[in-house]
Amino acid sequence: MSGATNPLTEINVIDILRQRCGGAGAGVMLGIGDDAAVTQVPAGCELVTAVDALVEGTHFLPDAPPGSIGHRCLAVNLSDLAAMGATPHWATLSLSLPAPDRAWLMAFADAFGRLAEGHNVSLIGGDTVRGPLAVSVTLLGTVPKGAAVSRSGAAAEDRIYVTGLPGRAAAGWRQGAGKLPADMSMAELYRQCFEYPVPRVRFGIELAQLASAMIDVSDGMAPDLGRLLKASGVGAVVDIPDLGCLQQDFGIATARDLFLAGGEDYELCFTAPAAADNGIAELAKRCDVPVARIGTVTAANGLRWRHNGVDISGDVPAFEHFVA
Amino acid sequence: MSGATNPLTEINVIDILRQRCGGAGAGVMLGIGDDAAVTQVPAGCELVTAVDALVEGTHFLPDAPPGSIGHRCLAVNLSDLAAMGATPHWATLSLSLPAPDRAWLMAFADAFGRLAEGHNVSLIGGDTVRGPLAVSVTLLGTVPKGAAVSRSGAAAEDRIYVTGLPGRAAAGWRQGAGKLPADMSMAELYRQCFEYPVPRVRFGIELAQLASAMIDVSDGMAPDLGRLLKASGVGAVVDIPDLGCLQQDFGIATARDLFLAGGEDYELCFTAPAAADNGIAELAKRCDVPVARIGTVTAANGLRWRHNGVDISGDVPAFEHFVA
Repeated sequence: MSGATNPLTEINVIDILRQRCGGAGAGVMLGIGDDAAVTQVPAGCELVTAVDALVEGTHFLPDAPPGSIGHRCLAVNLSDLAAMGATPHWATLSLSLPAPDRAWLMAFADAFGRLAEGHNVSLIGGDTVRGPLAVSVTLLGTVPKGAAVSRSGAAAEDRIYVTGLPGRAAAGWRQGAGKLPADMSMAELYRQCFEYPVPRVRFGIELAQLASAMIDVSDGMAPDLGRLLKASGVGAVVDIPDLGCLQQDFGIATARDLFLAGGEDYELCFTAPAAADNGIAELAKRCDVPVARIGTVTAANGLRWRHNGVDISGDVPAFEHFVA
Repeated sequence: MSGATNPLTEINVIDILRQRCGGAGAGVMLGIGDDAAVTQVPAGCELVTAVDALVEGTHFLPDAPPGSIGHRCLAVNLSDLAAMGATPHWATLSLSLPAPDRAWLMAFADAFGRLAEGHNVSLIGGDTVRGPLAVSVTLLGTVPKGAAVSRSGAAAEDRIYVTGLPGRAAAGWRQGAGKLPADMSMAELYRQCFEYPVPRVRFGIELAQLASAMIDVSDGMAPDLGRLLKASGVGAVVDIPDLGCLQQDFGIATARDLFLAGGEDYELCFTAPAAADNGIAELAKRCDVPVARIGTVTAANGLRWRHNGVDISGDVPAFEHFVA
């Protein structure tokens, strides 16, 4: 229609994305370029679908590198699928751009394409419109029938684990926004954790056979573990782990806040029965993923946080405030 | 993370959407509320995926009724799936909102939900962020294996058909934008065609057994039929049909422009061999969808437009300019 996006512009943008990210991957019968894509879900599998959007100002600063945006818009969805134990396959991308900028788009598409390729993900649909910078990705994957790991399977006495060290990405974001000093030795690491998070894809897929419940840590440990416990109808006692570089760089109070309420790390928080202890340790070693056991599920509701043996629950917002 | 959307706000928005549109429909094992949704693709079927976004200023005016936006963001994707002959099942919605506005959101969700319900579509994923008004929907559906109708199957001598009268929606848009007079008798119809287009879902699904190629008319007949012919490697001779009320209200030149380059109608343009003539007529009657036969596919490339017996191709932008 006359008021719509210039078709030529839109087509150029989609062409660039298709060339960089639209490889005809596994199960793709018909990719980008028709009214819709056609794909084949492997026999005996269920479809797993996640959607996540990034918007300038909320999820990235106006001067964020396009590669970081291209990486993160896919990474956050890979992390959602990993938290279900699902294998990613196909993505759709909806991109709102203020003005066609070929260099920006190439860098965006390169980063998106690199991450997609690394996980055998094909871009099967794209829509680009003229507007304020925003990206939304829907990612489709599969799990063997009945094998998806939801948030609701945690049982009393299960152990609670987390990968990596949540809080580092938020340190990078706050540094970039001028809210934390950026002159310490680990500044570059924090920036990297925020701009190019590494979703735990393979680990999540293999963990599906061991975990009783799982969630990815996108908003911080307090709200996200809170959501898992609420969905499972249980409580927990958790010992905040060694906060390492975060505590050295920012002091205990800030480090704890970054861990509990930081977000954007895309680590996996999960529960498993004691019998899975060895399996988890082996899997962590095989995937080269640091995993810390941080607590125990309780039949009684409520989430108690301890740090260095001291109960600090009074300083942590009650998780009920956050849960969906 | 600290810079992110207020979790409470986001959760309220998703709750409203879930209540209005997130009914656990067919094949939904796990809906909104976990890291990702889990659904079951029926045995013997392939997955069909479309994505389309609407942005303020480009696809709707700043004062557009929220119900129209809620309706259209799903309708445009229903139309894409219809153009593949696919049955819609599940949708994800990515919504960027300037500020939480409960009344706006309720009207949006009501219209989205009503249309979704009418087509047995379940909302299985939602992400809401704070930002300029924009909506992106990814719609998932299925077709029996190998039955999807692409753009590329048209063959010489096939007949060319179109449903409805493309151009009326664009008339509504131009009226609303003050670019066409809005004082004629059909003004309300044009507005309705633009704000609440009716995707040809059932007709498209049943047509899959008869059509050789299909596309939905989102950008106007010239670019969209051009895309179909290009994808099929053929040409066509087309007679512009009776432009009815468009010609009466706006004169022949504007009516023709609305038909050829208007867009936003979400009618179906398709080709079929002569043997399908009767089947198409019966199907049109059964679905109560007006269908006009407007031309014939030619082995030679090129698209010739005639109006009232006169070749007007020189006045129509060459379709190659538009094709992807």
